[in-house]
Amino acid sequence: MSITQEQADAVLAAGRRAAETLGVPMNIAVLDAGVHLKAFARMDGALLGSIDIALGKARTSALFGMATEAIGEFSKPGGTSPGLEQTNGGLVVFAGGLPLRAADGTLLGAVGVSGGAVAQDLQVATAAAAGMAAS
Amino acid sequence: MSITQEQADAVLAAGRRAAETLGVPMNIAVLDAGVHLKAFARMDGALLGSIDIALGKARTSALFGMATEAIGEFSKPGGTSPGLEQTNGGLVVFAGGLPLRAADGTLLGAVGVSGGAVAQDLQVATAAAAGMAAS
Amino acid sequence: MSITQEQADAVLAAGRRAAETLGVPMNIAVLDAGVHLKAFARMDGALLGSIDIALGKARTSALFGMATEAIGEFSKPGGTSPGLEQTNGGLVVFAGGLPLRAADGTLLGAVGVSGGAVAQDLQVATAAAAGMAAS
Amino acid sequence: MSITQEQADAVLAAGRRAAETLGVPMNIAVLDAGVHLKAFARMDGALLGSIDIALGKARTSALFGMATEAIGEFSKPGGTSPGLEQTNGGLVVFAGGLPLRAADGTLLGAVGVSGGAVAQDLQVATAAAAGMAAS
Repeated sequence: MSITQEQADAVLAAGRRAAETLGVPMNIAVLDAGVHLKAFARMDGALLGSIDIALGKARTSALFGMATEAIGEFSKPGGTSPGLEQTNGGLVVFAGGLPLRAADGTLLGAVGVSGGAVAQDLQVATAAAAGMAAS
Repeated sequence: MSITQEQADAVLAAGRRAAETLGVPMNIAVLDAGVHLKAFARMDGALLGSIDIALGKARTSALFGMATEAIGEFSKPGGTSPGLEQTNGGLVVFAGGLPLRAADGTLLGAVGVSGGAVAQDLQVATAAAAGMAAS
Repeated sequence: MSITQEQADAVLAAGRRAAETLGVPMNIAVLDAGVHLKAFARMDGALLGSIDIALGKARTSALFGMATEAIGEFSKPGGTSPGLEQTNGGLVVFAGGLPLRAADGTLLGAVGVSGGAVAQDLQVATAAAAGMAAS
Repeated sequence: MSITQEQADAVLAAGRRAAETLGVPMNIAVLDAGVHLKAFARMDGALLGSIDIALGKARTSALFGMATEAIGEFSKPGGTSPGLEQTNGGLVVFAGGLPLRAADGTLLGAVGVSGGAVAQDLQVATAAAAGMAAS
């Protein structure tokens, strides 16, 4: 089971609404449970350097089924897994990537958001993920 | 001047409608005039191997402002530019990538479609590009 | 809107004059707003290892519309975005890359300078950017 | 002995004049005898996909001290060196790259031109190389 086109549309739409409310144009990437690109939107004016970061956050979150900053906890100095962020061709380990799960907890994919301050990215990713649940 | 979010939405929507009419799920990628990802949709059931092809077709078309198969003419045996398809980190030189232009001819970006037979990919790309013009 | 050939010429000329005044030969790279190479000059005697650094500084600055050392603030230990410098295929996050903006603030591209001490690189990049504004 | 900044300036200036006469905006790359980037200019409107090709032609020509199409002769079907174009990380083996030599024949570097039809690229590269000799 993986995310559907309709669910991905809902994730992007909810993320875009949240970014418009914040007034910060974002890059929003949706990957499926197999860690393949499902949907993407770059809002007008969003930073070009954030495309790769949005994709990387979604990839990191889909690979491990966790929020990206949780991976950062494992890999930080003194953490259990130094260098973890260098595996898988490089992970993005700050906030803005979240797993997308079915009501029963099954991992369906992940969303990654980049374009603002890290706290803003997380806020938009949270709204985007909630948009899928509500769809 | 480059493609807007609203124009990219129109390209994806028109491409998805055309693919549904054909009954073939497609990957559709939209890049801007600077050859950066603007929008992407993978329809349910579209081949995973076609994600990279759709992106590559859009990239090839945006880099040269031409249909992908026109690049193929230059690089084919006996063409003027043998090995052209190996430049720029590798190009995709069969049909399914089309430039997106403003009414005055300015290059705004490109669309790349992959998932069906090449003729079907081109048909969907043509519909997607027309969708922008009509938006 | 992106940097013109005439503006890029002015950036290189001003940068070269500043480097000559310092007596330090520099590599100077100019990228456009789409993060593509627009102009480049390696002064006689400039370090070969600095070619890639000048290009990387310009790329980093164009991707985020910021001075390179500002990106370094985000990615340093204790910053908001650990590992940011590993995204986008690797960023250069010390001084010497500056965004180039139109009078109205529009991002036109970026300049990257390398060849001397970091403070010298920044001094030449600042002069180069000012040369465009004065042109 | 390698190309100087002054000689590279002369190559770019002569190439740009020839391209303006043709009315075709070009990418022009100059590499030194050590196959490192010395100078580059992208004229306004030149194709983005031709940046990599201009650099590749200059690289190919500097690596072997020959015109790019001469390398193509060795690597073409029936030639002495099939697959030669795959060495060195990939060569560009159609016309538009020329060696730059001192009056005594010493290799100083190479110029690569891309942006028009292959015959136009060669015409501009020839003018660019002649510009150095006349400087």
